Amino acid sequence: MNKEVNVKKVYMIVAHPNRKGLCFAAFENLKRGLEAAGHEIKISDLYQENFNPVLFFDENKLRRDLQHDPEVQVYREAILWADHLVFVFPVWWSGMPAILKGFIDRVFAKGFAYEYDSKSHMKGLIKNKTAWIVNAQDAPGIVRFVPFIIHDYGLVLKRQILMNCGFKKVQCFPIFSVIKSTPERRSQWLQKLYHLGEKL
Amino acid sequence: MNKEVNVKKVYMIVAHPNRKGLCFAAFENLKRGLEAAGHEIKISDLYQENFNPVLFFDENKLRRDLQHDPEVQVYREAILWADHLVFVFPVWWSGMPAILKGFIDRVFAKGFAYEYDSKSHMKGLIKNKTAWIVNAQDAPGIVRFVPFIIHDYGLVLKRQILMNCGFKKVQCFPIFSVIKSTPERRSQWLQKLYHLGEKL
Repeated sequence: MNKEVNVKKVYMIVAHPNRKGLCFAAFENLKRGLEAAGHEIKISDLYQENFNPVLFFDENKLRRDLQHDPEVQVYREAILWADHLVFVFPVWWSGMPAILKGFIDRVFAKGFAYEYDSKSHMKGLIKNKTAWIVNAQDAPGIVRFVPFIIHDYGLVLKRQILMNCGFKKVQCFPIFSVIKSTPERRSQWLQKLYHLGEKL
Repeated sequence: MNKEVNVKKVYMIVAHPNRKGLCFAAFENLKRGLEAAGHEIKISDLYQENFNPVLFFDENKLRRDLQHDPEVQVYREAILWADHLVFVFPVWWSGMPAILKGFIDRVFAKGFAYEYDSKSHMKGLIKNKTAWIVNAQDAPGIVRFVPFIIHDYGLVLKRQILMNCGFKKVQCFPIFSVIKSTPERRSQWLQKLYHLGEKL
């Protein structure tokens, strides 16, 4: 079997201020695994790039023109280029850090990521792509089993954003209870991410 | 009955770029209602103030020192000053706009908004306050009745942020299906908000 056939284009988006922390180590491990398997990789390190997450529009800068916003064009091209996206971030207050939420707010505009049909139903425009969501949180794993009362923890990004925009498969790889985790547990998780990357 | 006895200190936080839109009109109506009832009001208009929503910490700027961050001191003082908080914002991608998410990320730091007890359980530190959450979204009202599969829409801010930080009562006042709403429906909603403000 020709290995080349399986080479994928992977766009990694990482959002954490501390380059010495667990989240960045997760990103690095996953990246090394993907590289070992020979995949092509593009990276947006949102903190490093000083990404401006504040979506702006008003009666002069129209919302409907945001799909052509040149400031985020490079991110849209990377999404269209990729077969597979990887989001790595910490869960703060049950959801994405503001810098990543703003990446979604600004990049995933109507006309690029989705349209409305004649009944005002959302129709995804980003087709044939898969994604992984890798996140670390202090909350315990139980939060994933009581979604009726505890919300988000990566599920909004998976189900209500990416799946609604047309992604065909999105998988979450959370680590819970970071605050109480042992060095062994963290190192196991990082190793798992390396192997996950290798096996894309 | 002395009217003075019921005067409350109200801190309003509004997060929308378009000062001519529905969300801003909601804010204005609520504010006029509150003023008519004689309440004292402080306002943070996050877009107007150019609020920077990007939380930063690393091995030099320590996370544990964020509770003393002078850049957000003014917001913490307003929260402590207030009896009642009002958040007005549009729901984008099921959650808060990045500028408001970052307000939470930066202002509600450990040591100010919460602490961990000896068992790593979160303990709210913002006591005896109430809040209203006013938001407008294109999604239909049904999203509030299927929380097992559809997440957030203001509930994260209510239950997983404010209630966890010690707030004693938080109420949501959403408007749904904005995209399909008639001018009559919008004007009814705005009138309701005026009366809500009057009756705090």
